[in-house]
Amino acid sequence: MISIHPLCDLPEIAAGDDLAALLRGSLASAGLLPLKAGDVLVVTQKILSKAEGRMIDLAAVEPGAEAVELAARTRKDARLVELVLQESVAIVRAAPHVLITRHRLGHVMANSGIDRSNIGPGESERALLLPVDPDGSARQLVEALSADSGGRVAVVISDSFGRPWRYGVVGVAIGAAGLPALVDRRGDQDRDGRRLEVTQIALADQIATAATLVTGEGAESVPAALIRGLSLPEGENGAAAIVRPAEEDLFR
Amino acid sequence: MISIHPLCDLPEIAAGDDLAALLRGSLASAGLLPLKAGDVLVVTQKILSKAEGRMIDLAAVEPGAEAVELAARTRKDARLVELVLQESVAIVRAAPHVLITRHRLGHVMANSGIDRSNIGPGESERALLLPVDPDGSARQLVEALSADSGGRVAVVISDSFGRPWRYGVVGVAIGAAGLPALVDRRGDQDRDGRRLEVTQIALADQIATAATLVTGEGAESVPAALIRGLSLPEGENGAAAIVRPAEEDLFR
Repeated sequence: MISIHPLCDLPEIAAGDDLAALLRGSLASAGLLPLKAGDVLVVTQKILSKAEGRMIDLAAVEPGAEAVELAARTRKDARLVELVLQESVAIVRAAPHVLITRHRLGHVMANSGIDRSNIGPGESERALLLPVDPDGSARQLVEALSADSGGRVAVVISDSFGRPWRYGVVGVAIGAAGLPALVDRRGDQDRDGRRLEVTQIALADQIATAATLVTGEGAESVPAALIRGLSLPEGENGAAAIVRPAEEDLFR
Repeated sequence: MISIHPLCDLPEIAAGDDLAALLRGSLASAGLLPLKAGDVLVVTQKILSKAEGRMIDLAAVEPGAEAVELAARTRKDARLVELVLQESVAIVRAAPHVLITRHRLGHVMANSGIDRSNIGPGESERALLLPVDPDGSARQLVEALSADSGGRVAVVISDSFGRPWRYGVVGVAIGAAGLPALVDRRGDQDRDGRRLEVTQIALADQIATAATLVTGEGAESVPAALIRGLSLPEGENGAAAIVRPAEEDLFR
């Protein structure tokens, strides 16, 4: 049996906050300490970005010529589009109200993952960028949280993405440490001795999505969750391992 | 707190089996009856397809000219490709070892969802097609399981899909009943009164993915899971509601 525990009582996070200490306090008050083998802490991108000071005052952003042109084409705020361009390595699709990019971290997502909703009272002119290095941040949280918990915890940094061909967002992992974000089973056999057709499993994406059942989106948002009871496979790689290079994309 | 319970003790499923009765027995022996409000039973596509007699003997398949040509191009079994074509409405991508189609149900997936692995001992020449009407089958399971359980259970039929831009499979819903597979929150506001940027949530996909944490893929497969503790939103629609028509795809 696997259980998913919402961590609800975190304070509003600000730049420079010690997120590991706050998460440890929240785990303690939820009765989830000591940590157990297989525990995975899922931290939403929003609070990690806030703790890392990734909130940008839009009034301070000077859109360049490309951003102005693209803003007109997508009917978006040119200052937001300037940030989207700074955060991305390629534009995948630009159309009215649609701007999908390949983020510098490799993820293909709307608006380079920049969020303007639910970032705090009176902050309508601010935008929240993705963390600089979510795999590295996950690694730091693993070290900080495992240090005095009597065991190791894995960490997944979650976000919500839209997808081609399907309506609605689902959770994805943009950072991971302490587990194999991508499980490679090439060479494994099924129970009849046939070679498995499914050979790679996006475990960190599955964990991020499972956590969204309690973290939700928007109005009901809970900023973190603990998943307990998993039998984590051996090996370790970050969310970067899930990113498929553009030239290897099977779907076009 | 949400819990995910594997249902492990189902027998090997054959065409014509009363899947609802077998699932009820498995729920009972796992101590999960009576069902509770918010319970969602996730049933893997494989056992539903087997119960519905969707196993095809490849020796009886006569590949047509298009299948023979496409099999050469993709280096796949022409009989399998014939089935893939019969099950699909469009080819999205064909390349060596890659054949991605839009299934007649609307889902974009490899090989029209046809599975040759792990379908039973000595069955290497057989292929398992998707259920004919997974939303309808989910509805039937809802009715059958809710009838004598003192409450209503929702049902999600799960499968595993690869995705553009990301390595590894995740769970998706190909059928659902008793819950809103797609939750539409257009018009809702976040906690600061701003209009939500994320307005549609693929709840059934999230639930299917969460269940894969216990149902797994291939060797360790568990054919069904019960998810307990969700606060399901009002409304009801099937997995068909998640399918985005090709002409509305935002990503190209």
